[in-house]
Parts: sequence; structure tokens; C-alpha cells
Amino acid sequence: MSSMFQFIKGSVTSPKGFSASGVACGLKKNGNPDLALLTSSPVANACGVFTKNIVKGHSLKRTMNVIQSGQACAVVINSGNANACVGEQGDKDATTMAQFVANELNCNPSLVLTGSTGVIGQLLAMDKLHTGITQAVSLLSTSEEAGHLAEQAIMTTDTIAKEFTVSFSVNGSDIVISGMAKGSGMIHPDMATMISIITTDCNIEHSLMQKAIRTVSDKTFNRVSVDGDTSVCDMVVMLANGLAGNKQIDSESSSEYLLFLEALEAGCRKLAKEIAQDGEGATKLIEIQLKHCNSKEDAIKILHAVAKSPLVKTAMFGEDANWGRILTAVGYSGASFNPDHCHIYIGNLQVCANGTALAFDETTAKEILSKNEILITIDLSDGNTEDHIWTCDFSYDYVKINGSYRS
Amino acid sequence: MSSMFQFIKGSVTSPKGFSASGVACGLKKNGNPDLALLTSSPVANACGVFTKNIVKGHSLKRTMNVIQSGQACAVVINSGNANACVGEQGDKDATTMAQFVANELNCNPSLVLTGSTGVIGQLLAMDKLHTGITQAVSLLSTSEEAGHLAEQAIMTTDTIAKEFTVSFSVNGSDIVISGMAKGSGMIHPDMATMISIITTDCNIEHSLMQKAIRTVSDKTFNRVSVDGDTSVCDMVVMLANGLAGNKQIDSESSSEYLLFLEALEAGCRKLAKEIAQDGEGATKLIEIQLKHCNSKEDAIKILHAVAKSPLVKTAMFGEDANWGRILTAVGYSGASFNPDHCHIYIGNLQVCANGTALAFDETTAKEILSKNEILITIDLSDGNTEDHIWTCDFSYDYVKINGSYRS
Repeated sequence: MSSMFQFIKGSVTSPKGFSASGVACGLKKNGNPDLALLTSSPVANACGVFTKNIVKGHSLKRTMNVIQSGQACAVVINSGNANACVGEQGDKDATTMAQFVANELNCNPSLVLTGSTGVIGQLLAMDKLHTGITQAVSLLSTSEEAGHLAEQAIMTTDTIAKEFTVSFSVNGSDIVISGMAKGSGMIHPDMATMISIITTDCNIEHSLMQKAIRTVSDKTFNRVSVDGDTSVCDMVVMLANGLAGNKQIDSESSSEYLLFLEALEAGCRKLAKEIAQDGEGATKLIEIQLKHCNSKEDAIKILHAVAKSPLVKTAMFGEDANWGRILTAVGYSGASFNPDHCHIYIGNLQVCANGTALAFDETTAKEILSKNEILITIDLSDGNTEDHIWTCDFSYDYVKINGSYRS
Repeated sequence: MSSMFQFIKGSVTSPKGFSASGVACGLKKNGNPDLALLTSSPVANACGVFTKNIVKGHSLKRTMNVIQSGQACAVVINSGNANACVGEQGDKDATTMAQFVANELNCNPSLVLTGSTGVIGQLLAMDKLHTGITQAVSLLSTSEEAGHLAEQAIMTTDTIAKEFTVSFSVNGSDIVISGMAKGSGMIHPDMATMISIITTDCNIEHSLMQKAIRTVSDKTFNRVSVDGDTSVCDMVVMLANGLAGNKQIDSESSSEYLLFLEALEAGCRKLAKEIAQDGEGATKLIEIQLKHCNSKEDAIKILHAVAKSPLVKTAMFGEDANWGRILTAVGYSGASFNPDHCHIYIGNLQVCANGTALAFDETTAKEILSKNEILITIDLSDGNTEDHIWTCDFSYDYVKINGSYRS
């Protein structure tokens, strides 16, 4: 399919009707921005996908509840504190956090979605949060820069802000979809493996919008593994306010829906790859392609095993073509396959044929592995399922970042 | 049960009838010992448990085949090369390796068990191996030191040799069980998560011996996770030659069998903990105890998730009481449980009650975490299943060791 959409410069405020701000209210010890606010006027249709971790953060649990109305006019997210595992007070604080925003915006608090990310097990400093929210509301702006500030305020150990903006036309109406996301540890399927907010001015029927975000999340956010840890605060939320003025997209088989889906997927793929690339301590983005697998279930098992293997990930960090570790991980993944039919490629270089070592050129391998992006292809010669996952290497810095995260 | 057995000074040659040797034949680039030979005269009953990885090393595959006879008179193990994933030549080389030993010992090659550990995907240097085997046979000795040399020769990234010797009496006959093992990367259930050889002079019926090693492996070797990677060459093999002269142990309900089991378990538990403690780059042994879980299956899921979590393991390295990561791992393990009933202890210090943070003393926590051995207890207040796993922390050195293993 030819791309009928295009990436453009922008931020989460690029779709019509969205404002944003990002401030530092003191939740982060280092004084970095830690509170993001995003609003839509008019009230937007809203839907989301949420962590499958049985343990759920209080702010996230509240959002899972209130988003059932299908509508939202604001999203408030703090970083520096996950508001998780602190008991009833955490639920109360999430409610209060939404109430602070609702008071300032003069809206119903059930239309305010809440998110928190950071350290688990500590109470939110509600006074700081209150001051921050007042300030964030006063700074709300539709400028591109305001969106960038919001993007920065949701970062934790991320080193770069993650965003995309795409635009396309539907019957003469220009539609914009934009998104922001934060990583970068505790990243693993299933599901919403991080916090991401998608904004769009598209007029799209609510159930289709929900279907789109589920479909796209499964191909993008759910195909990222940084360290195999699924966080208790992960969510992807999409707000659509219809301001683009297009005739409502209401059919799953319409070309308009397919274009919306294609544009959304391209944007979310960009975010997903950026999350992997910016994984804690990562020096390389690694894409693992699996070909000719005999079932979807086995494909997932294999991709998770290889992407999670510390031995594979440290080898990539060391730029060592140690493909035996890849085959080993496939072997213990729990998937059924015939090792004697397995081929492995690093970049375009085949290193293993029929489960057996090939005499490959180590210099070429080293050259491929010295790049910032590495493609590993595993071909099982058995079946028609293809799938992929993005991950990163395991470096000294991962240990450094995570050995002293709370201090 | 009072311990009717005792740990004694010894090595794999301590049980009557066993000889051993360990030599350096050049398979390891650094010139360290890399070939171990162990023999029993008379021919011993033999059984084993083997890796569940679908990919299996050639030497191991051969052993799985020939051990079906239930008998063995020798075990030859090389380190420095896994003899894995090299195609038909690997099978031939494993056969030739056994033949070299059989020629020197003048025995049937099907009585020679083979094992290889090290780099995957490289052909064995058979000339070096031949010279090494000739030398190893000439150095065979029943001395304790000979056993220690064999223990050293099977090491790869291990920093200490792992061994135990226990003795007990059955109706006036003194019985000795001894074992050696190597770790220390690619260590994870299931199953025999490393190479271990157990020797004993006990006279025990073959099916009971097989039952004992399975039962004990499940409680010890299968409760160790260093990095979640299950190797393609892992095996536990036990040889029993009956030279102790006891009346054959032939009943599962006999006190003699229970004593044998108890002594074997104590020994293998020592090896298992040593493997975790000596995990690649490890600075700490971590024991995770799970209490009041509602099923064995959920217990395993939870213990694996926590023991594999890089976030938990780096926090332990950083001596950071970041219990939120422990609860998070329990949450994504796939087990069903009620987070509001979950208690977490670090050492004796409770840090989480009913899924909620406790205000604990950070100084006390730091003191506990600065030790070389750390106990983490997770109590789900739901059911009667208890289980445990041993693991280690994740350090800079893990990355260093595994970033350049082949070079």
C-alpha cells in the first residue's frame, strides 16, 4: 500500500484542539520536569490499553475505571513517583490529583485521566503536585513547544523524548495524529509496555478507535522488550476530538479507516523503536525477525526468549557474533521446532545453516555488529508465521542505572 | 529428621572404586585444565537427567543415548568447547572421543559417557583431545587431589570448583556419595542446569537411583537461576558401583533409601547454592522463599519471574531495598494471586505488608543487603505451597564476562 500519510514536524498539540504543558514541581530529586498536562477542547473520545500486570498502580487503576465512559478532556501524568503499592492512600491521591485538575479546568473530574511513573511504594507529595498542577494549567498552550515540554515531563530514565506526528487527508479534511511515549526500563510485553498518549483531531467512531489502538499496540508497543519486566503503570491512551471535521469514520472496511490505521501504526512503530533504542543503558537497537514459524504462539515464545536472554544481549553489547546463544534461547523458549532446519542471520550475514555453524567472515560480522541498529533473522523453515520484536543490548550502564535507581 | 550423614573432606574419588584425572590439552586458549576423566571399577550403574533445551549438544545427545543401558565405567568431559551445533561431525566427534577413552581403558565405548561445555558452534580439536585423553588415562588416580583436578578441568567461567562429599552407614556398611559441578552462566531451570557428576559406592537398585537423582535435582539444581538461559549441554549424571558392600537398597519406603536421599539432597543443595553464588559476575547469593502460594505451578512461575528479573538483580547488586521491583515481577509472572495479601521481607525486615509500602529502616535494610547472602521472602497469604529458588545479583562483571566470551 502506498503511504497516503506523511510524517510532519509537530508534537501532541499538533492535532486541532489540544493544549499541553510540562513543569517541574519537585517530585524528581534532580529538578527535571515531572508533571505533564494535556487537554482537549472539546471533550474527546478516549480509549486505552493497560498493563496486564496483576499489580497495578493507583493512578492507572483510576484511569482504567473512568475511561470506561469513553470520554476525556484532560490527561495529567507525573513522573518521579509511580503512585503504586501504597494502599488506599494511593487511590485517594489519584482521585485528588484528578480533582486538582478538574477544579482548575472547571470540568468533571471523571473526564481527567491520571498516570504516574517512577519509584514504587512511596506516597505522592500532594502539596508539590497541587502547586505543579496550578502552574501547568496556567501554562497550557497549543504551541508545538508546549507539547515537547509535556513529552519531557513524562520521562524517567529516558534520555530522549519520544514523539511522532503524522498527517493525512480524508475526503478533503486534513487529519493529524500525534503521540508521545516514555520508556525505558521495566519494558516488556504484554501489553502497554510504557506510558504513551496519542492525540488526534480525527472524527472516528469510538469502538473503531478502540479497535485501532488495540491492533496497533499489538504490532508496535507489544513488540518491544528492554528487560522483560512489565511495569505496573503502563498504558497507551488515545484521545480523538473530531475537530478535523471529517465525516465520521465508522466502518472497519472503509479506506478511511485503513488509512487511519496505517498512519497510526507508522507513528506507534516509531515510538516503539525509539523506546527499545533508548532502553536503559542501551547502545544498540536490535530487531529480531522470525520467519517460517509454525504458529503465532510459538513465534511469541521464541521472540520473547531471544529478546530477554541476557547472554544474547550482552553479546550484542560486546559486538560478538555469538549466534550459539541465539539458537540456545530458541531452544529453551518452549516452542516446538526442528533445530536442524534453523537458519540464523546477523544483518545479511548467515552464521548458522540447518542448526549448524557456518564458517563466516568474522570481520564482516564485527562490521555489522558495530552499527547502532542490528537485524537478527531467525528462519525456522517450518510454517508461514512471521513476527518480530525490538530490543536493545545489555550494557554496563544498565547495571549502573538500575543498581541505584531509588537513590 | 536428624542428620544420619555427615559432610567429610573428599572429592569425586572418595567413594570406593573411582579414579579421576584432569589435564590441560589446549582446548582452552588460556592453558587452563580442560579435560576431566572419571572412571569406576567395577562398571557402575549409571543414570542422569538432561537439559530440556530442544537444541542439544552432540556429546550430551550421545550420553543420553548410551546411558539407557544403565551402566558406565567412565565419564570424559571437556571444557572450552561445547561440541554443539556443528552438524554430523559433532556426533562423530563425540563417538570418537568415547572411542579414544575406550581404547585406552580397554572397555566397550558404550560404557563411556561424554560431556562438553564451552563455546557453541566450533569443531572440537580432536588431535588435542586425543593427546589429552591419553595423558588423562595415564594420570588416573584414586587420590583426593585427582578428583580436585577433574573438578577444575570442567570449569568454564566458574571462579571456584564445586564439590561435596558425604558419608553415612547402612547396616554397618560405610557409604560415600560425592559430587562435582560446574556453572556458571546459561544457568536456569529446567532442568539439570549445569554439568554435575555424582559418584557413590552405594549398592542401590537402578530404578531407585534414577528416582533419587530426579527427586533431588528438582529440589536443588532445578532451583537455581543465574541468567534464565538453559544451556544445550547441561546434565547431571550419577554413577553407583556398589563397592560399599551394603545390602542393596531396593525399597522406596526403606529407611536406607530415605537416608541415601537425604544425604544426596544435602550434597546437591550445596552444589546448587555454590553455582548460584558463583554465577557469572555475582557478588551475592540470593535465596528467594515463597510461602503460602496456592499451587506448585504458580509458585514456579513466581520464583522464575523474580529470579530472572534484571531489575531485581541489579537492585540487589546496588544493595537497594527496591521491593517494588519484586512485587512487580510477582505481578507479571502469570501466576494468580491477590496483591493486597502479599507480604515481602528482605532478611527479617518486612518492607511490604498487604501489597503496601511499610516505613522500614533504610539503615537496617542496607546492612542486610550488604551481606554476601540475602534471603528474600514473599508471603502470598493464600494456600499451602512453599518453594524456593537460588539466584545471584547482576553486576558489571556479568556484562563484562558475557560481552566478550568468545574472544
